[in-house]
Amino acid sequence: MNRTEALRELLDGHWAELRRGSLDLLGKLEPVHDLPREEHRAWVLEQMGVLAEGGHPLTGFPVAQGGHGDVGGSVVSFEVLGFGDLSLMVKAGVQWGLFGGAVQALGTGEHHARYLPGIMSMELPGCFAMTETGHGSDVQHLRTTATYDPASGEFVVHTPDRDARKDYIGNAARDGRLAVVFAQLVTGGEQHGVHAVLVPIRDEGGNPLPGVTIEDCGPKAGLNGVDNGRLSFDHVRVPRANLLDRYGAVAPDGTYSSPVEGANRRFFTMLGTLVRGRISVAGAAGSATKKALALAIRYAEKRRQFTRPGTGDEVVVLDYLTHQRRLLPALAHSYALHFAQEELVHALHEAHGGEQDDRRQRELESRAAGLKAVSTWHATHTIQTCREACGGAGYLGENLIAGLKADTDVFTTFEGDNTVLLQLVAKGLLTSYRDHVGDLDPWGMARFVADQAVGVVIERTAARAIIDRLVSGSSDALLDRGWQLRQFEDRERHVLEGLARRLRRASEDDAFDVFNAAQDHVLHAARAHVDRVVLEAFVAAVDRCADASARELLDRVCDLYALSTIEADRAWFLEHGRLTPQRSKAVSQAVNELCGALRPDARELVDAFGIPEGWLAAPITA
Amino acid sequence: MNRTEALRELLDGHWAELRRGSLDLLGKLEPVHDLPREEHRAWVLEQMGVLAEGGHPLTGFPVAQGGHGDVGGSVVSFEVLGFGDLSLMVKAGVQWGLFGGAVQALGTGEHHARYLPGIMSMELPGCFAMTETGHGSDVQHLRTTATYDPASGEFVVHTPDRDARKDYIGNAARDGRLAVVFAQLVTGGEQHGVHAVLVPIRDEGGNPLPGVTIEDCGPKAGLNGVDNGRLSFDHVRVPRANLLDRYGAVAPDGTYSSPVEGANRRFFTMLGTLVRGRISVAGAAGSATKKALALAIRYAEKRRQFTRPGTGDEVVVLDYLTHQRRLLPALAHSYALHFAQEELVHALHEAHGGEQDDRRQRELESRAAGLKAVSTWHATHTIQTCREACGGAGYLGENLIAGLKADTDVFTTFEGDNTVLLQLVAKGLLTSYRDHVGDLDPWGMARFVADQAVGVVIERTAARAIIDRLVSGSSDALLDRGWQLRQFEDRERHVLEGLARRLRRASEDDAFDVFNAAQDHVLHAARAHVDRVVLEAFVAAVDRCADASARELLDRVCDLYALSTIEADRAWFLEHGRLTPQRSKAVSQAVNELCGALRPDARELVDAFGIPEGWLAAPITA
Repeated sequence: MNRTEALRELLDGHWAELRRGSLDLLGKLEPVHDLPREEHRAWVLEQMGVLAEGGHPLTGFPVAQGGHGDVGGSVVSFEVLGFGDLSLMVKAGVQWGLFGGAVQALGTGEHHARYLPGIMSMELPGCFAMTETGHGSDVQHLRTTATYDPASGEFVVHTPDRDARKDYIGNAARDGRLAVVFAQLVTGGEQHGVHAVLVPIRDEGGNPLPGVTIEDCGPKAGLNGVDNGRLSFDHVRVPRANLLDRYGAVAPDGTYSSPVEGANRRFFTMLGTLVRGRISVAGAAGSATKKALALAIRYAEKRRQFTRPGTGDEVVVLDYLTHQRRLLPALAHSYALHFAQEELVHALHEAHGGEQDDRRQRELESRAAGLKAVSTWHATHTIQTCREACGGAGYLGENLIAGLKADTDVFTTFEGDNTVLLQLVAKGLLTSYRDHVGDLDPWGMARFVADQAVGVVIERTAARAIIDRLVSGSSDALLDRGWQLRQFEDRERHVLEGLARRLRRASEDDAFDVFNAAQDHVLHAARAHVDRVVLEAFVAAVDRCADASARELLDRVCDLYALSTIEADRAWFLEHGRLTPQRSKAVSQAVNELCGALRPDARELVDAFGIPEGWLAAPITA
Repeated sequence: MNRTEALRELLDGHWAELRRGSLDLLGKLEPVHDLPREEHRAWVLEQMGVLAEGGHPLTGFPVAQGGHGDVGGSVVSFEVLGFGDLSLMVKAGVQWGLFGGAVQALGTGEHHARYLPGIMSMELPGCFAMTETGHGSDVQHLRTTATYDPASGEFVVHTPDRDARKDYIGNAARDGRLAVVFAQLVTGGEQHGVHAVLVPIRDEGGNPLPGVTIEDCGPKAGLNGVDNGRLSFDHVRVPRANLLDRYGAVAPDGTYSSPVEGANRRFFTMLGTLVRGRISVAGAAGSATKKALALAIRYAEKRRQFTRPGTGDEVVVLDYLTHQRRLLPALAHSYALHFAQEELVHALHEAHGGEQDDRRQRELESRAAGLKAVSTWHATHTIQTCREACGGAGYLGENLIAGLKADTDVFTTFEGDNTVLLQLVAKGLLTSYRDHVGDLDPWGMARFVADQAVGVVIERTAARAIIDRLVSGSSDALLDRGWQLRQFEDRERHVLEGLARRLRRASEDDAFDVFNAAQDHVLHAARAHVDRVVLEAFVAAVDRCADASARELLDRVCDLYALSTIEADRAWFLEHGRLTPQRSKAVSQAVNELCGALRPDARELVDAFGIPEGWLAAPITA
């Protein structure tokens, strides 16, 4: 096995076989780009059929319905779709991840038997209708109602006004026939919080059903192969059985019951089952970023500009320090995030199989929120950088980066706005994932912390033993992994402790103002935490790499990840006496040197991603 | 006059009347968005006719041809188009700025008389064919040839291979009939460097002329209303009179003559006449950024999310510190750049009217390069932020931000790649704009500096007297303008001096390596310089504001610009002992407080931009 293969094997990880199978399936699709909107939508729907026939959706669904019950695998196979057409990937995510996933997670046996086969085969295209025009991040306050009418044994689903329309709903504008509608459940005059109800929206002929109004969201910045739309319901009646009743049921007489005590706790339990969506977005963002890097680095290796003095040869642009600076730290971050994602998928997979454990579940949700935010911002930033690094060629549709940029842009705000998600991360850290089910509004955190004597504990992740070893024997050399780990850990602890002290000053009356004044501090705390978790995942991956030469290469990539992360936040390290001015400059110098040292390996590092050549074919790389 | 009007008057500046007229003309156009490509192209061409009829192109052309000879005004009227459809703006820039501008600047009397009337009226649509597939930034090395044949008295224009195709050329794919083709001029077997030749490319019926191959660049990330294409020439013959011969002429017998000595010097002189293009792009980027900020701030003032504890009301999102942090420093930067742009347009206007002055011309080119880079990166960054600040709504075409993002993305690399431009800025600073006409390759700088005893001199801009006063009486308070000015100036000087020391170590043999190792230092030096020039322009603008209350508001905006700029680079100030850790944290705290203080004025600050309401009409602001 050569070094590239060894790298690739490590990247493939636990689900290697499934990953290779998904790559093969993707490789069979015929790439397209820049189709007009309606053609693109039709193409995507057609490919959905190909994916269904190829067995793509089976991975994550229950064995009882013909699936493979492999939750982690379903995220991995989705991640692979991120190398292909991103509209197709999102449509697959909507149909099998969100819509199918909600039926699976929130429904019970009869729902599974009745709907999952058609969902898997694409005979029953459907929608996940959660977001409303007026409420995106604050799901708890959405305003569609599902009111039980005991006389008829039906729920009446209703949209009170324009702000309560379901908005940006994938599969709604063209193809969806059934929707999982999130609504405030009312029975016997009492509200029981947000629940999910199945509402048919189109007949077999594709026409909206009575009482259902469907609008098209129209052209979007990207993802125009996905038919996003708006759904409004005018007193639409559905049978009682359409309530997805795993966490909340209504008896024929209207009596409400739930296995979960308390409306807040129930709400978070239901949302928690949907955590896979966020993890999938992080993975997809990772794939798109890898693809942009592969395109930009291939181009940077052949593009020449300006002649070198003396020789008269034109210089390959990747030989310029600024070009290396733009692309190589980003590449190192993509490696780091890849391994963190793999670890997260493991955690999801194990949580799914294991016993219900509230603390573990909350930690998983927090990790998912954090990694989704960091991965999607990394995608937006890096793909933009790749576009610029390719100059005018990067702006042309035929060279694919423009499409990646347009399609991934929404990732930073869908499946949870990144800014809101990072606040949830900080909340989890400060409350140590206790069984705390306060409001979703972030200043609940301030009130909560104010009431507690919180001690910040940095819990190490998977690679605990390795990291302990590296830290305990470490010197103060910049390239000493133990030193790097200590910096990440120390920063996280210090930022969190400072935040806890600030928030503890809040009283009942000024909780909002205290929280708001500290909001940038909150985001920094979350960010420092995610950075540390990502570094530890990278360290663990290097440790399990059996090939010596691949390991040596990864060690340098890990150095670049660690030092460029410290460099980006070096003002903090300087402000808090963690770096002297001299040493801070040395960090920047070390990043420059690592860029130079890794430049000859750049092409190999992107080749190891194993992106199907057909999906990289562009004039820019020809 | 109320405060908003006073602000607007100050923003309108010297060309207020012309600006209002251009706004009126733009206001008469019917906004469109998300048209299919061919429809969009047709719409844009139609509107070009409306602009021509409305007198838009007359501003900048010579009085002798019916124009107004107002160079500065032509940049301002172009800037106004940036509030409208950006494809239309770019098409106008191609036709009247680049194509018409090149005929005007590089041609002589007969060219003017023969072509300018048709260019202005749009009877003669044309192209500016400079960039080749293989050479964008390095214009000096482009490879199309124009070889004079004395037997026929013609030039033979030829594309030797695929890399020498003219690429990304606006107006080429659909509408252009004549092209200004930049080519290596050869006569009598001798090369005389890059010159511009007029080459007809299409007949009256719109068909390519013999020997001319035209390709369509196809779909782009944005600006799809502009018909970018590729031009190749197979020994195409044009009359000798088609050479734009102001800076280089060929006699019937093939003898070459030029009023400018030396090929390098001639090349830079010719390029220098095209500086208006870069200045125009900076202005256009400014307009698009203002529009995105206007949309995002209007939305942020009405969008509510999460309930406030106690009251139960939902919080307006602009009340969140993070939301203020994302939008308000960006708004302050837009103000700052606006005033710097106004100053630059003045300098262009005066240079045009005045005597030829090499040093002044080089300084103008450097200023244009720097402001173009900083303004277009500010646009890319800010429009992205605005998109995210509007969540899913920001991703929909109907809300306009998606289009702004897609259309402006290419600004960072067209009319000169920003990274290359900043290197030119640094070069100018280190060589003090001497009459130095070395190669365009940036390490010429290293060689040059190595040979000189360079003293770095910070020359203050327009507002010298005011700034001297502010600096000399200044305290060390963060909000003291004199202190802020000193920080900007001190940073620029220190970074430049350090750079000069590094580059001076270079020898003939290692110039490339020394330069390359310092490349990030070079970019930082340029950036520090541009920041200082921008701050001084802002200070001068505040000083000339007659309305006390508008002035008080602008003072706070200027504080936010200055302190957020220092904050973004505070690692440097810490590393170099310019800020203590305590003071550095105080800068961040001051930025937070300024955000809170300016939040009530945010809407007024964007209203003062005077963007026509029709071009802001979107569901998001309804």
